[in-house]
Amino acid sequence: MISVVILGSGNVATHLYKAFSKAENMAVNQWFSRHLKVIDFYKNEVEVIDDLALLKPADVYIIAISDDAISKLSSQLPFENRLVVHTSGSVGLHDLDKKNHRGVFYPLQTFSKDAEVNFTKVPFCIETLKKEDYNTLKLLAESIGSICYKVNSEQRSSLHLAAVFVNNFTNQLYRIAHEIVESSGTEFELLKPLILETANKIQTLSPYMAQTGPARRNDKKTIKKHLKQLEHSSHKIIYELLTASIQHTHGRKKL
Amino acid sequence: MISVVILGSGNVATHLYKAFSKAENMAVNQWFSRHLKVIDFYKNEVEVIDDLALLKPADVYIIAISDDAISKLSSQLPFENRLVVHTSGSVGLHDLDKKNHRGVFYPLQTFSKDAEVNFTKVPFCIETLKKEDYNTLKLLAESIGSICYKVNSEQRSSLHLAAVFVNNFTNQLYRIAHEIVESSGTEFELLKPLILETANKIQTLSPYMAQTGPARRNDKKTIKKHLKQLEHSSHKIIYELLTASIQHTHGRKKL
Repeated sequence: MISVVILGSGNVATHLYKAFSKAENMAVNQWFSRHLKVIDFYKNEVEVIDDLALLKPADVYIIAISDDAISKLSSQLPFENRLVVHTSGSVGLHDLDKKNHRGVFYPLQTFSKDAEVNFTKVPFCIETLKKEDYNTLKLLAESIGSICYKVNSEQRSSLHLAAVFVNNFTNQLYRIAHEIVESSGTEFELLKPLILETANKIQTLSPYMAQTGPARRNDKKTIKKHLKQLEHSSHKIIYELLTASIQHTHGRKKL
Repeated sequence: MISVVILGSGNVATHLYKAFSKAENMAVNQWFSRHLKVIDFYKNEVEVIDDLALLKPADVYIIAISDDAISKLSSQLPFENRLVVHTSGSVGLHDLDKKNHRGVFYPLQTFSKDAEVNFTKVPFCIETLKKEDYNTLKLLAESIGSICYKVNSEQRSSLHLAAVFVNNFTNQLYRIAHEIVESSGTEFELLKPLILETANKIQTLSPYMAQTGPARRNDKKTIKKHLKQLEHSSHKIIYELLTASIQHTHGRKKL
C-alpha cells in the first residue's frame, strides 16, 4: 500500500486524485488546496485541508500546482526527509526544497477539465535522486495503469517544449483550418477524419516518412494558388514558413 | 449495379480500385494506366489497359491522376455524354472536358501506399452539374461505406487548403518535435499519446475551446525559456509565429 497526499486543485491534481482514489493498493490520505472550496465537493471521501500544518505522514506528497508556486510551497512543508514530487514539465528537480527527498512525476498528456482521463494513455516522466524513490513513483504510475519513463530534467524540458509543438501549435493549425473552411461556408466537421488519421499515421510511421503534400513534392503551382487563396496575412506567413520548413527537412531548401 | 472505370495508378486510384472491387452492387469494368506495369499485378481480377481507345462503356469514369494531367486526359477520352469525374481537391469541375457529364469525387483523407484504407473514415466531397449525377456518385461513396457531402469548387478548394494545415503542416510540427526530443536523447515515442489525444480532443471540442499552454495563458516566462532552449533559428521563428497566432485568436495580441 502506498499512501499519497495531493497538493493542488487544478486539472492535474483533480485527475490524479480521481485515479488514485480508485486504484488498488493506493490510499489518498489527504487533499490540500489553498482554495478549499474547489475541493470541498470531495470532503466525504477524503480529508480536505487548506492548512499545511495539518499535513499527516504519507509515502509521497504530490505537488500539482502552477509552476511558479512549486518552489515556495515545497519549502513551506512542515516536515523533512519525506518524498515530495512535482508534476511540472518545465520546473527542475532542484527547485524543490532539499529538506525532503525530491522527485518529478510529470504526466506527458493534455488534461481537460471535464473529460475523463484514461491513464493507460498517459506516460509519466519520472526523475528522482534515489533509486528507491524511483521505484516508489514507478509503482504509483503503474497503480493507475500508466507506463513510466526515466527522464532527466534536461530531457523533460525538451519533451515539454516538444509538447507545445505537437499539442498547442497543432491545435492552432486546427483553429486556422477552422477559420479557412468557415469563411467559405463549409464545415470543420469534414476535416475531423483527416485530423485523426494524421495523428494515427505517426503511431507507426516517422513524421519524416509520413510527410506528403505540395511542399513535400515541391508543387509550386499549388503552393502559389494556396498563398493567393489565404485571406489573412498571418495565415500566409505561417503557410510560407511551414512550407519552407518541410522543404528544408526534405532537402529542397536551405533555411 | 454501378459500373466504373478507374483511370490512374497512384495511391488514390489503387485504394479506390481495391474498395470498389470488394463492394456489393459495384463492378470495376476496366483499370487504365499509362504505366501498365504498375497495375499489371491486378490483371487476373480486372481488365487492365493502357490505351484509351480500348475503353468500354461504364456508368462512371474516375480520373485519379496528378492534378496537372486531369484536364488533358479528360479531353482525350474517345466518347461523349458519359459521367467523368476527377478526385482532386484543387482542380475545378470545369477543368474537365465538357463533352462529357462532369463531376468531382474528392476523398478528403490522406492515403499511404501500404496502409489499408478504411473508407468509413473518408468523407467524399461531391460536386456535379446534374442532380442524377450527384445521386450516382452518392451511391458510389455509400457502396464503400463513406459519407458524402455536397461541396462546390470554391468550398472544396478551401477544404484542400485547410487540409494542408491539419495534415502536412501538423505533420511537420511532429517532425520538429521529433528533432527537439532526439537532440536531448529522448524518444519521440513518449509524445505519441499526446499527439493522439490532441487529435481526439478536437472531435468533440472546437479548436478554440481546446487550446491550452503557455501562449494561451500568456505565460511569458515559459515562452522566453522555450525560445532560449530552441537550437534552430527556424524552429524559433515557428515558435514565435504560432505563439503570436494563438495570442491573436484568444484576444491578447494584434497581428
